Amino acid sequence: IEQMAAKARSQQINFRPHFKTHQSWAVGQWFRELGIDQITVSSLKMAAYFAADGWKDITVAFPVNVLAMNRIENLAAQVQLNVVVESLHSVERLAAGLRAPVGVFVKIDTGYGRTGVPAEDTDLIDRLLEGLRASPQLRFKGFLSHYGHSYACRQIEDIQTLYAQNTPKLIDLKARYQSTFPDLMLSIGDTPSCSRVEDFGGVDEIRPGNFVFYDYTQYLIGAADIGDIAVAMSCPIVALHPERGEVVVHGGSVHFSTDRIEDAQGRTLYGWVVENTGTGWGAALEDTYVKKLSQEHGIIHGPKEWVEQLQIGDCLKILPIHSCLTADSMGAYRGVSSNTLLKMMA
Amino acid sequence: IEQMAAKARSQQINFRPHFKTHQSWAVGQWFRELGIDQITVSSLKMAAYFAADGWKDITVAFPVNVLAMNRIENLAAQVQLNVVVESLHSVERLAAGLRAPVGVFVKIDTGYGRTGVPAEDTDLIDRLLEGLRASPQLRFKGFLSHYGHSYACRQIEDIQTLYAQNTPKLIDLKARYQSTFPDLMLSIGDTPSCSRVEDFGGVDEIRPGNFVFYDYTQYLIGAADIGDIAVAMSCPIVALHPERGEVVVHGGSVHFSTDRIEDAQGRTLYGWVVENTGTGWGAALEDTYVKKLSQEHGIIHGPKEWVEQLQIGDCLKILPIHSCLTADSMGAYRGVSSNTLLKMMA
Repeated sequence: IEQMAAKARSQQINFRPHFKTHQSWAVGQWFRELGIDQITVSSLKMAAYFAADGWKDITVAFPVNVLAMNRIENLAAQVQLNVVVESLHSVERLAAGLRAPVGVFVKIDTGYGRTGVPAEDTDLIDRLLEGLRASPQLRFKGFLSHYGHSYACRQIEDIQTLYAQNTPKLIDLKARYQSTFPDLMLSIGDTPSCSRVEDFGGVDEIRPGNFVFYDYTQYLIGAADIGDIAVAMSCPIVALHPERGEVVVHGGSVHFSTDRIEDAQGRTLYGWVVENTGTGWGAALEDTYVKKLSQEHGIIHGPKEWVEQLQIGDCLKILPIHSCLTADSMGAYRGVSSNTLLKMMA
Repeated sequence: IEQMAAKARSQQINFRPHFKTHQSWAVGQWFRELGIDQITVSSLKMAAYFAADGWKDITVAFPVNVLAMNRIENLAAQVQLNVVVESLHSVERLAAGLRAPVGVFVKIDTGYGRTGVPAEDTDLIDRLLEGLRASPQLRFKGFLSHYGHSYACRQIEDIQTLYAQNTPKLIDLKARYQSTFPDLMLSIGDTPSCSRVEDFGGVDEIRPGNFVFYDYTQYLIGAADIGDIAVAMSCPIVALHPERGEVVVHGGSVHFSTDRIEDAQGRTLYGWVVENTGTGWGAALEDTYVKKLSQEHGIIHGPKEWVEQLQIGDCLKILPIHSCLTADSMGAYRGVSSNTLLKMMA
């Protein structure tokens, strides 16, 4: 958290961390202590949770749900709320349905292909901005993008190249609309770019979230070193099958989620086992990973000699493949040094 | 529920439904009203939840966690508790740690390869039964197996063939040990077998769970017709991209889980869209499915003409790929006809 905050400060850009990864008042407090007072979330429920803890400036970085007008209105009355649009229909519904002022970002797709207006579609952008200007409650804040395709990268250089290909599209949009909207911001978000790009020239705000813990996927992407991963699962061994190099733990898809990643060796991974040092954990074990999950079972593949020296009732420490989903499934953390329970909204 | 209960009754075998799929006191009540009084769960937490609602005979069908002796002891004092073992170490830890009587099933692996003693390993089975006999609190109940490899089936005949290959291994074990343990039971569990096998001759108990809702995976396996699926997700549309035949809904991996299945056409599916009839749902739409999930986003693939007539704010109804995990993620259901909220333990 300190590293990312320092990087944003040194670049003189806004740091609006995404809180969807940790979803915790307690972890949020660590950001607050560094002077951070603007946050990003991915749902109105999460916005209400953090608003209840005193956060006053919240962007919901998800295409606005027009069925939730009451909740948007209610939040907007309590905090500086920003929502995200990508269609004229949503702009019209917001303009017709809201009385409280709301900040609005237009979502731009620079190539990821999940949501957003393609950066080239300035006709649609023109119409959206016209719709926003026509409404006294809707305040255009700028262009928001998420380079989600950075998750396909597998080394630092790839992340930097992708950033260098995508960002000029946003900078062009800023140049095009800045005379009409002098305060418009460019907001970007993905953890790989925010971790591995050093110069954010032209961008006004970063919104990384996963960096707070990282995970084995971020390590494989090249966004983090394995020692940067700050969360692990502790799972008791319930069965041993040394003859096939397998360990069964209580830790299944309801705990880890079923997200997985294929590594360069073609192995499908659901988690990676690290040395258990008691209160914390050490280095990653060689060729020792979660190969399969059932609802409550985790099946670990490991060298026979390693399996042979384990005992039922021992606990394994496992780095999650996707910390956001594992955290969401578990609902709480235990601090390694403090040993306190850090609750989440779930 | 009525169909499965009637089938067990007509076969004169024990019906001990697995409650890990629905995890709900309210749904459990529907079983109770049919006279069912024995259940299966997959964790001690779930056992405690159902014990609190008055269930008095509970099998925890998961290799026993020897670190949880206090919770086992506490449950065993309240209900007829059965646990599952597959190692001598666990038997010894239970024998040393428990004062209350506990029923014990020995887990047998007939070929799935996840947990259990291989059915052929009668040396280990001999030693386990010896260990159980030596303890006054541990009461050997029988052999428990889960034909999890039935999930690889793709038609009814495959399910029936797999059942016919696996079951004789258990019947042989029963024949071998019955003179010493005249009351020993054979307990099997998977939903595909329980749904598509008509004659359970030699088996004493079935423990299906998923059948209570079924899901799109069970349909692809051949275990259920698509009209048998009894749970769907309702997700609001937040973005439309007709040019690429895509719809974005609020419904992501924290709602569905990231479990997926590949169908015969090689499509990776995270859910299948059905006709929305208002309170309920109708037929499956052609070529219209969840192709990708992010934490909060669901990306639906569908025909362009279909996407073109949708509107932001409409709700889509989606059959889950794996109802157990989707239910676990959501934490509650709403009854289609009653419109009441059915809470879960989560």
